[in-house]
Amino acid sequence: MPAQEIQSLIQLMSRLPGLGPRSARRAVLHLLTRRDSMLAPLQQALARVADGIKICHYCGNLDLHDPCAICADEKRDPALVCVVADIADLWAIERAGIFKGRYLVLGGTLSALDGRRPEDLNLDPLLKSVAGGAVREVILALSATLEGQSTAHYLCDRLVQITPETQPLTITRLARGLPIGGELDYMDEGTLAAALRSRHAASESRDSTMGEPIT
Amino acid sequence: MPAQEIQSLIQLMSRLPGLGPRSARRAVLHLLTRRDSMLAPLQQALARVADGIKICHYCGNLDLHDPCAICADEKRDPALVCVVADIADLWAIERAGIFKGRYLVLGGTLSALDGRRPEDLNLDPLLKSVAGGAVREVILALSATLEGQSTAHYLCDRLVQITPETQPLTITRLARGLPIGGELDYMDEGTLAAALRSRHAASESRDSTMGEPIT
Repeated sequence: MPAQEIQSLIQLMSRLPGLGPRSARRAVLHLLTRRDSMLAPLQQALARVADGIKICHYCGNLDLHDPCAICADEKRDPALVCVVADIADLWAIERAGIFKGRYLVLGGTLSALDGRRPEDLNLDPLLKSVAGGAVREVILALSATLEGQSTAHYLCDRLVQITPETQPLTITRLARGLPIGGELDYMDEGTLAAALRSRHAASESRDSTMGEPIT
Repeated sequence: MPAQEIQSLIQLMSRLPGLGPRSARRAVLHLLTRRDSMLAPLQQALARVADGIKICHYCGNLDLHDPCAICADEKRDPALVCVVADIADLWAIERAGIFKGRYLVLGGTLSALDGRRPEDLNLDPLLKSVAGGAVREVILALSATLEGQSTAHYLCDRLVQITPETQPLTITRLARGLPIGGELDYMDEGTLAAALRSRHAASESRDSTMGEPIT
C-alpha cells in the first residue's frame, strides 16, 4: 500500500471529474516518477492559481483579477452580452475567437429536477444593465437541451419586460444545424430538421460557416 | 480564454495519463470552483509528497522514507521476494493484502522494441541477495504478456545460475486461470487453455480461489 500521504493525494485526484480510483493512481504515479518535470510544476501552478483566483462580480467568470480580463478589456463591446450557463461554456466560446462582446455566466440553467429557480442564477448584473439601457444585444448561448431552452425562454420573457422603450434590445440565440465536420447520416432527426428549417441560399453559405466576426 | 496561470495549470493537467485537453479543462474548472474543498487540499497534498518522495534503494518502491515502509517492516519476510515490473503492480499486489514478503521493482520489462535490456532494469539488489543465499523464494509476478514472460524467462535463467548450492532457491510465477468474477464465455482461448491445464481437484478449489495467505 502506498504511504498515507500518497494515498490522500490519490484520493483527492480521484474526486476530479473524469478520474476514478484507478486512473487517479496512474496519474499520481506519473507525477511521483516525474518529480521535477511534473510534480513540482503542477504544485506551483496550483499555488499560483489558489492564491489569486477570484470571481468577476460583473460576469461571474473566474480570473486572477476582478473585474476579469474580459470585462476589463476596453476593446470589447459592453453593449453586446453573451449569456452562458457556466464558465466552461465561456471558455468554449472564447476558443472560437470571434466574439468581441462581454459575458454573463448564469452559474447553471433552470431545472425543476435539481430545484434550480431563477433566483439561484446570477441574473442581476444583466437585468440591471438591460433595465439601464446599456445593452444593445443579448445572445442566449445556452445548450440545445430541454433545460437550456427553458432557461432561454424564461430569460427572453424577462428581458422583454424590463427593456426600456427608448433603447430597443435585440435578443438572439445560437444557430441550429450540422456541426462543422458532421456527417449527415450520423445526425439525429432533430438536428437535421433544424438544419433544413434554417436552410439558406448556397451563395451565402461560405461566409456563414466560416463564422462572420461578431462586432 | 482563461488567464495565463489557469491555462498553464490546464496544460500541466492534460499531460497526466487518462486526461486530455478537454478533461483537463473540466478538472481544473472543478478545482477552481471548489477552492477550499479541492484546490487547497490538493495543493497541500502535492507539497507534502513533493517534499518527501524518495525511491527505496532496496526495492525501488516510492515512499516518503528510504528504506520504504515495506522494506522497513520487520514482520515481512526478507527471504520471500516478489518481482514486479513497476510500482503500479506493487500497489496492486498490496491491495490484495495477502503477500507478506518483500518486493523488487524492475522499473519495466525487457523489450526489444523499446530497447530495454537487462542492464536497464533494477536487478542488482535481487541478484546480490540471491547470490548471498538470503532468499528462499522469488515470485516472478510479471504480466501475462510477451514482454512480461520473456522477462520472467530471462530472470529465471539468471537466478538459477547465481543461486549458491548450499541454499536452494524456489522460483515461482503467478497462476494462470479465470479471473474472479470472470464469465467463461467472455474468456479468450489462451486463458481457458491455461485454466484447463492448471485444473485441480474440486475439493481444493475453495481454498485456492480465496487465496491462501502467503507466508
